[in-house]
Amino acid sequence: MGGVTDPFLAAARCEPDPDRIPVWFMRQAGRSLPEYREARAGTTMLEACRIPELVCEITAQPVRRHGVDAAVFYSDIMVPLKAAGIDLDIVPGTGPVVAEPIRSRAQVDALPELGVEDLDFVTEAARLLVAELDVPLLGFCGAPFTLASYLVQGGPSKDHAVAKSFMVSEPETWNALCQRLAQYSEVFLRAQIEGGAAAVQVFDSWAGSLAPEDYRSFVKPHVRGLLGSVTDVPRIHFGVGTSELLADMAAAGCEVVGVDHRVPLAEASRRVGGGHAMQGNLDPALLKADWEVIAARVEAVIRSGAHTPGHIFNLGHGVPPDTDPTVLTRIVELVHEEGPTWRRDELERIADND
Amino acid sequence: MGGVTDPFLAAARCEPDPDRIPVWFMRQAGRSLPEYREARAGTTMLEACRIPELVCEITAQPVRRHGVDAAVFYSDIMVPLKAAGIDLDIVPGTGPVVAEPIRSRAQVDALPELGVEDLDFVTEAARLLVAELDVPLLGFCGAPFTLASYLVQGGPSKDHAVAKSFMVSEPETWNALCQRLAQYSEVFLRAQIEGGAAAVQVFDSWAGSLAPEDYRSFVKPHVRGLLGSVTDVPRIHFGVGTSELLADMAAAGCEVVGVDHRVPLAEASRRVGGGHAMQGNLDPALLKADWEVIAARVEAVIRSGAHTPGHIFNLGHGVPPDTDPTVLTRIVELVHEEGPTWRRDELERIADND
Repeated sequence: MGGVTDPFLAAARCEPDPDRIPVWFMRQAGRSLPEYREARAGTTMLEACRIPELVCEITAQPVRRHGVDAAVFYSDIMVPLKAAGIDLDIVPGTGPVVAEPIRSRAQVDALPELGVEDLDFVTEAARLLVAELDVPLLGFCGAPFTLASYLVQGGPSKDHAVAKSFMVSEPETWNALCQRLAQYSEVFLRAQIEGGAAAVQVFDSWAGSLAPEDYRSFVKPHVRGLLGSVTDVPRIHFGVGTSELLADMAAAGCEVVGVDHRVPLAEASRRVGGGHAMQGNLDPALLKADWEVIAARVEAVIRSGAHTPGHIFNLGHGVPPDTDPTVLTRIVELVHEEGPTWRRDELERIADND
Repeated sequence: MGGVTDPFLAAARCEPDPDRIPVWFMRQAGRSLPEYREARAGTTMLEACRIPELVCEITAQPVRRHGVDAAVFYSDIMVPLKAAGIDLDIVPGTGPVVAEPIRSRAQVDALPELGVEDLDFVTEAARLLVAELDVPLLGFCGAPFTLASYLVQGGPSKDHAVAKSFMVSEPETWNALCQRLAQYSEVFLRAQIEGGAAAVQVFDSWAGSLAPEDYRSFVKPHVRGLLGSVTDVPRIHFGVGTSELLADMAAAGCEVVGVDHRVPLAEASRRVGGGHAMQGNLDPALLKADWEVIAARVEAVIRSGAHTPGHIFNLGHGVPPDTDPTVLTRIVELVHEEGPTWRRDELERIADND
């Protein structure tokens, strides 16, 4: 298990191992792997998330296959909401669907508290994993805005129009909802940390749809509260299309900012003031490209990452389900074999220019 | 028809009328209007686009109803591709679907030339409109990247993975495809201008999905060529999620940069160097909010727009189909009645601070 010298945790603490650039992939455990599709056969997503042995197997699969430097807990951001009694399902090909969208104060007030004991299956799965893995286990959860968008819309949405209009029209009810959702996610993280997760990632996947002023008014306070509840482990804060939000997302309280492919890591680091490690950011849409092109992009990401206090290599978003997994394995090999040399070379170049 | 004193054209030329902030809405002609749904009944989208009288009626509907300051030609970015003989359809609820995705050099080389005479129904509709309208007619087209994404993917896509991987792996074929598509869009714009369109907007709707370096290498040269072919009218260049691309989009050759809701107009103007008019940028996802909230946002957009050399009020993206059209009419009234006062007030505030 990763101690202070683990390359993933070292990078997350801005003390990168000069001989190893850690790499993992968002959605590395999932549909891109034939062994995942086999393990999941006959079980719904939400059922699978409640079976510790299955969670353990699925979480470990990409570590075995790709040799990544972190295992990300296999679950779903909606799992704690389901455990709290909210009637929802994960519909294959669609995503989370909520039976009764939440749009009134009475509905928000009726949302029950969630205790860490309600997620004992999560803690148990994490324990199994930590006993088996020789890389750190990364816990995760959804951020209040992204969870609230699903609950208010009733399901996935391209523009989050119902949720955003509700947010600005009924801020008190919105804030009460987000506080409750932050509590659910905090318990979800705590259950994973109690089981041995050594770091966490908060996914605010849809935050990038917001104007910066709306992010600051209606979203940041809630995610700050959530991040502030897990200061005992390194925290990664991630969203898609967050060019305009990076400084606010860093300031919300995290050690690592997850960046999508739209902003080079060096520029992202500059925008947050240089004090945070960066995670990212190969465009997952390029995974179907010729290998020579992918390899050149991996090098460019690592060179840009050399301009940050710590770099965890990742994609800019999750692994697309139709990705050829052998490409991911090759990327891991390349990052491990050539990455430290590229970074050292870039650091020398920076020093020479100073 | 708008001459040099027309408020829309004046703002587009960075010589804004102090007494009028022009306003129109992307997708103002369309499904949000009951009279549109009635006019379109029994006719497919691509059929409707070929009937000049119907195009004229649909284009004029939002001008009559809302009192907007520009009419945007009713058509589709795929119309010139269809006219060139590409087998495609606009599927309701889905979007453009291409029978045979284009992924080889042979397919690109087989794409025929398009002549302005092939779009005589476009020119005819524009002529009818200019005779009827007392506001300028705005022509439009798709930019090469957005069109190429549909052709290579075969239809709409969230991540454009096939198109982007093709783009970086086979740049010569990609460039040949984009050159052909730029020619189609140029002819489409020319047909509208010959009919009397007084300005044009180039939609690169999906450009914001690109990393800046990819935009510069594979996309900007082609859209620059397209924009350079219509220097006889003011040009608006628009995309969604283009925070990182604004300076490049301005430099590609346009008078007006269309900005989505993620970047305040004053900041967008600063990023492009201050020499361009700005169009935007109320978040369309807020159109379901309480009127007081919408009104405050309209004021904020106009105040931000005062920090630019010219401001055309619009949404940050198209009108959602389920929008209550009475909200749009109220926004137009508000922009016209209060907008100039807000702008003057903001300009005085800026002068006082200098």
